[in-house]
Amino acid sequence: MKNIFSTRHAASVAPDIATGTDNPGGDVRAVIDAVLPAVDNGRFAVKCVAGERVCVRAHCFTDGHDVLRVQLCWRAHDQAEFREVPMKPLGNDVWEAGFSPPAIGRYVYTAVAWVDPFESWRSEMTRRVDPDDVRIASEVGAAEVAAAAARAEGADRIALQRWATELQASASAPGTDAVSLKALALDEELAELARRHPDRRHQVRHPVELPLVADRERARFSTWYELFPRSAGTEPGVHGTFKDVEARLPAIAEMGFDVLYFPPIHPIGRVQRKGPNNKLVSGPEDVGSPWAIGAAEGGHKDILPALGTAQDFRRLLARAADHGLEIALDIAFQCAPDHPYVKAHPEWFRWRPDGTVQYAENPPKKYQDIYPFNFESEDWRGLWAELKSVIDHWVGEGVRIFRVDNPHTKAFPFWEWAIGEVKREHPDVIFLAEAFTRPKVMHRLAKLGFSQSYTYFTWRNTKEELVEYFTELSTAPGIDYFRPNVWPNTPDILHEQLQHGDAATYMARLVLAATLSASYGIYGPAYELREHLPREPGSEEYLDSEKYQLRHWNHDNPESLAPFIARVNRIRRENPALHQDRTLRFLHIDNPQLLAYAKASADGANVIVTVVNLDPHNAQWGWLGLEPGSVGVNPPSRVFQMHDLLSGQRFQWQGDWHYVRLDPQSCPAHVFVVRRRHGDERDFDYFL
Amino acid sequence: MKNIFSTRHAASVAPDIATGTDNPGGDVRAVIDAVLPAVDNGRFAVKCVAGERVCVRAHCFTDGHDVLRVQLCWRAHDQAEFREVPMKPLGNDVWEAGFSPPAIGRYVYTAVAWVDPFESWRSEMTRRVDPDDVRIASEVGAAEVAAAAARAEGADRIALQRWATELQASASAPGTDAVSLKALALDEELAELARRHPDRRHQVRHPVELPLVADRERARFSTWYELFPRSAGTEPGVHGTFKDVEARLPAIAEMGFDVLYFPPIHPIGRVQRKGPNNKLVSGPEDVGSPWAIGAAEGGHKDILPALGTAQDFRRLLARAADHGLEIALDIAFQCAPDHPYVKAHPEWFRWRPDGTVQYAENPPKKYQDIYPFNFESEDWRGLWAELKSVIDHWVGEGVRIFRVDNPHTKAFPFWEWAIGEVKREHPDVIFLAEAFTRPKVMHRLAKLGFSQSYTYFTWRNTKEELVEYFTELSTAPGIDYFRPNVWPNTPDILHEQLQHGDAATYMARLVLAATLSASYGIYGPAYELREHLPREPGSEEYLDSEKYQLRHWNHDNPESLAPFIARVNRIRRENPALHQDRTLRFLHIDNPQLLAYAKASADGANVIVTVVNLDPHNAQWGWLGLEPGSVGVNPPSRVFQMHDLLSGQRFQWQGDWHYVRLDPQSCPAHVFVVRRRHGDERDFDYFL
Repeated sequence: MKNIFSTRHAASVAPDIATGTDNPGGDVRAVIDAVLPAVDNGRFAVKCVAGERVCVRAHCFTDGHDVLRVQLCWRAHDQAEFREVPMKPLGNDVWEAGFSPPAIGRYVYTAVAWVDPFESWRSEMTRRVDPDDVRIASEVGAAEVAAAAARAEGADRIALQRWATELQASASAPGTDAVSLKALALDEELAELARRHPDRRHQVRHPVELPLVADRERARFSTWYELFPRSAGTEPGVHGTFKDVEARLPAIAEMGFDVLYFPPIHPIGRVQRKGPNNKLVSGPEDVGSPWAIGAAEGGHKDILPALGTAQDFRRLLARAADHGLEIALDIAFQCAPDHPYVKAHPEWFRWRPDGTVQYAENPPKKYQDIYPFNFESEDWRGLWAELKSVIDHWVGEGVRIFRVDNPHTKAFPFWEWAIGEVKREHPDVIFLAEAFTRPKVMHRLAKLGFSQSYTYFTWRNTKEELVEYFTELSTAPGIDYFRPNVWPNTPDILHEQLQHGDAATYMARLVLAATLSASYGIYGPAYELREHLPREPGSEEYLDSEKYQLRHWNHDNPESLAPFIARVNRIRRENPALHQDRTLRFLHIDNPQLLAYAKASADGANVIVTVVNLDPHNAQWGWLGLEPGSVGVNPPSRVFQMHDLLSGQRFQWQGDWHYVRLDPQSCPAHVFVVRRRHGDERDFDYFL
Repeated sequence: MKNIFSTRHAASVAPDIATGTDNPGGDVRAVIDAVLPAVDNGRFAVKCVAGERVCVRAHCFTDGHDVLRVQLCWRAHDQAEFREVPMKPLGNDVWEAGFSPPAIGRYVYTAVAWVDPFESWRSEMTRRVDPDDVRIASEVGAAEVAAAAARAEGADRIALQRWATELQASASAPGTDAVSLKALALDEELAELARRHPDRRHQVRHPVELPLVADRERARFSTWYELFPRSAGTEPGVHGTFKDVEARLPAIAEMGFDVLYFPPIHPIGRVQRKGPNNKLVSGPEDVGSPWAIGAAEGGHKDILPALGTAQDFRRLLARAADHGLEIALDIAFQCAPDHPYVKAHPEWFRWRPDGTVQYAENPPKKYQDIYPFNFESEDWRGLWAELKSVIDHWVGEGVRIFRVDNPHTKAFPFWEWAIGEVKREHPDVIFLAEAFTRPKVMHRLAKLGFSQSYTYFTWRNTKEELVEYFTELSTAPGIDYFRPNVWPNTPDILHEQLQHGDAATYMARLVLAATLSASYGIYGPAYELREHLPREPGSEEYLDSEKYQLRHWNHDNPESLAPFIARVNRIRRENPALHQDRTLRFLHIDNPQLLAYAKASADGANVIVTVVNLDPHNAQWGWLGLEPGSVGVNPPSRVFQMHDLLSGQRFQWQGDWHYVRLDPQSCPAHVFVVRRRHGDERDFDYFL
């Protein structure tokens, strides 16, 4: 008989998932239907930032009218004991609580719930009217309190026993009137005491312990500047060095960036080296593509001698840190034909019947200068270990941020393992996935561990496209793990929109990137100097791209956007609303060329409203819908100030509709901070 | 070393979920990101109907450009071996296949995927141009074919060996030209052979075997008629019997119903019996509420003597079957104070300190005539077994459909166990959950096993409400397990809209129920006779409700809606589009009082377009948007016929916009079938 009554049996249709019932009996009536956020039911980790509140919701209920208690349980990954936080009902069977992971690292969380006899009794008692009922219910309550006393110890036990006796005595005494008896039964002090010693025998535990990764803040909020060190030289035609980059640090820091990212800095292959503009033949002077890694001088753990020494690199890291800049390196797991790995580890490559290594190809396209690794190698263990040791090497040199080149062309299990292992030892490491590919593939990479992901931003240009895409990026499920990092340009992508070179377009795209996304980056100096010629019509490649040759940049160009970029990045730094993506809300504005949106800081204290004119040629105007109450203006009839942090102008707004006009000839965007009356900052629900 | 390289370790942040990798090595490159449909990641079963196609999608991809093969795997719950069906790529990394469970019962399904070396090689070969490449690739292919031969046996092996030799020889022969070599390599017969013997060493299996329940068709498509047998008598004031119900069967069948549902037929308690209109006191003549179950004559397994004997009941079941009607019984797990259980099993109830049983209450409301079971009883095993034996008893009597009263006031694990057990022995049993409660609770009941669920339809009256609610009901996740059964009225709910008694309202609500939902029901004869007086103003209770007294109905009333109901139900029966909810699509119509929607059968052959005037007083007209191509009219410029199955009228439509006018004085609805040219029926994508 016993066998057929296990609840496991009841779920016999379902797969073998533990029910998580602490007491596996049929007398467990509390139900936990879901705990959120969860990525693929806990297969992957939710991402957050250490020290910040993670908001957890559980869908819990029971049969009938009895009262539940629900607790959020969380612990660091390597701790044995859960800490518990009471969850509060929000209505509609949703319960909520939060916790703040105190340090970077891995955590797990789940929920427990139970039907609480004391709270159920108390809830009914509040609604009792009939004196006989009150008397009998008080006796029931006295028994509950006595049971709580039995679960308690010390002073609580004595106090609860005293309460139980008093309640029983008052209920039995013939003279007690119902009103005072009810007041006694509902005494707050008694309730407080009894709640500390609940009857959790019938508690249910959510079967999944949901994983969480707490990163440092830069994983969520970062401002990237990409440059080719070899073009940092001061003389045209002379190969730039790390020392030259050092000289550029003050200017880059002045523009407000905090991550300085280099394409690969390793020795560049000579075999099949590409010439300027990706020509198949190269001359002896040609410098080749930094992504064709490896030559006689070394491979992924070595530095191209023309850039400097390991010591130079370490000094650059230190100098950059002095300017608040972190150096990010490029992880491009592929080899030039003369990479030392090819000879040392032929088993890591595919070989063709003609005795040559299979180069990268996507017929009819061929990339003879690139040998991919074979992740189906018999020695995949050796390959994995070596590739991870590349990351370890640069972590050892002090690098903590990596931009990973084409991660979607390497085996997915490798990344989950390698990132997991590196972050286990160094939880402060950040990985940006450069996967410009199909949505499900990009999401998988984010789920399996990448801290940030490149996006389709470059190809999202119209109002409709931007609203749709950033709504997706700022909502579940992606908001819990994807972390977009948006780029108006990269060395590979000069979007057609930028090929006209209008300052207004460059400014608008920069403001969009910087305010729509907490992380963004530009490929410079090409961006601030508005480099805009394509290799050929219809191409998204730059003409005379730095990918294949040295360039020399005129940083003194008076038309440089550097001061504008500096202003935008200062606004970002000073306004917490722009440090995250979760609160993004698009606003109605009656002009298809005008895009408007708001972001608020987690505590609501800081609200930024951005309006961008997407038309680089004409002034555009329209009426923007913004209910004052939704951004904390109280009463809503009050006049409030919108302070444009870009222009410095201040506007007085009142009511729900507001006239906005933007002339691209002066500036294509407003970035307003909402200035409210002192004290209003925290007591409103942003956009509820 | 080995330890750190298991993929399990890679997922160390995640909970202990098996990766499902057949080969747990790092050389497994195929990824299965999701398999759908899935209810709570496989914790609960998806529902379907035996013999009908279940469409399964898997999100699968791999790194780089290699080609995947993906197979859907399915088996009956108690079979050991999976059957496999090749899945086809739909684009965007989504793969699809279907299978038809051959019989009612339980099934599981999942997916496997692998990077296929032969298909990858072949895909690249199709795009090769360079003659040297073609030659080398042909040698690679010859090796793949030889490997396939080694995996094959018998004739296939010999044939593949021959192909491998020929391909190798042609590739090596100096004279072979690239065009004919490529043609040889891409030979379809060779491909067909090689595909039969794939290299699945690196296959990945989705870690969850998703459960599926295949029901009989009536679980999806059913038309219910509820009546109180005690009011089926032919003389006013005389208690009706099962024999009286027999006499009503032809009329009920004539109206087109296929399920005849009775409120509880058991002995009714005498203690605390309620009088007419729910009065607290009753006289000796009062019949009491059928839901106050149990008296000296017996309990849940017994029949109220006034209705007849067990033999009468069995005869009624047989007679009903002759008319195509199934009898559904009410499962109401609660007791009148004089139910035999109370004395025999005092441990199944809660007792109050005054020595009385705790009756149902929701203070300050009291239901002294109802004793709920205590699902936290120490003897919950005995209670569960007895309650299940009640269902078993009636199953033994031949009943296969149960409407369960207030399942949300009984412990959820009990239902999961009891329904699972009953359906394990009798997979043809159908359970309808009468839970008018909060959404998450209703969904949980549906997930844990109820075949159909009551809904909020009664309180969804405006166009906006209906569109929102039925969009939710006909889409994921609910569409995979919820199965709405919608009721314009019940003995408990006489909606305010019906209290005016307008025929147009009764007709409109009936058409809405019958065409929006594959399952619906009415409480009759109150519905067809337009019983419409509430107990008091503002109440949803019927005046002189059958719940507490006998009623006598005049079936010969010339204003009865019976003929109209018969017509609507005949349309339902004859049009497969109305037998399911998945294809419901609302149509644009420029009048807020007009609601329009389409449904198509799974094969697209049958398309029904319904238009309802929600205003019972005034004629309403408007322009309805329906693109001919979306309902299979080709070319879209063609004139097509809309045949109103309610009125018999035929309209010629052409183009995208169509004028519609409905006068509630004649009929408040059109139910059109789209008449297309012969042969058009199957070659279109409905609303794609």
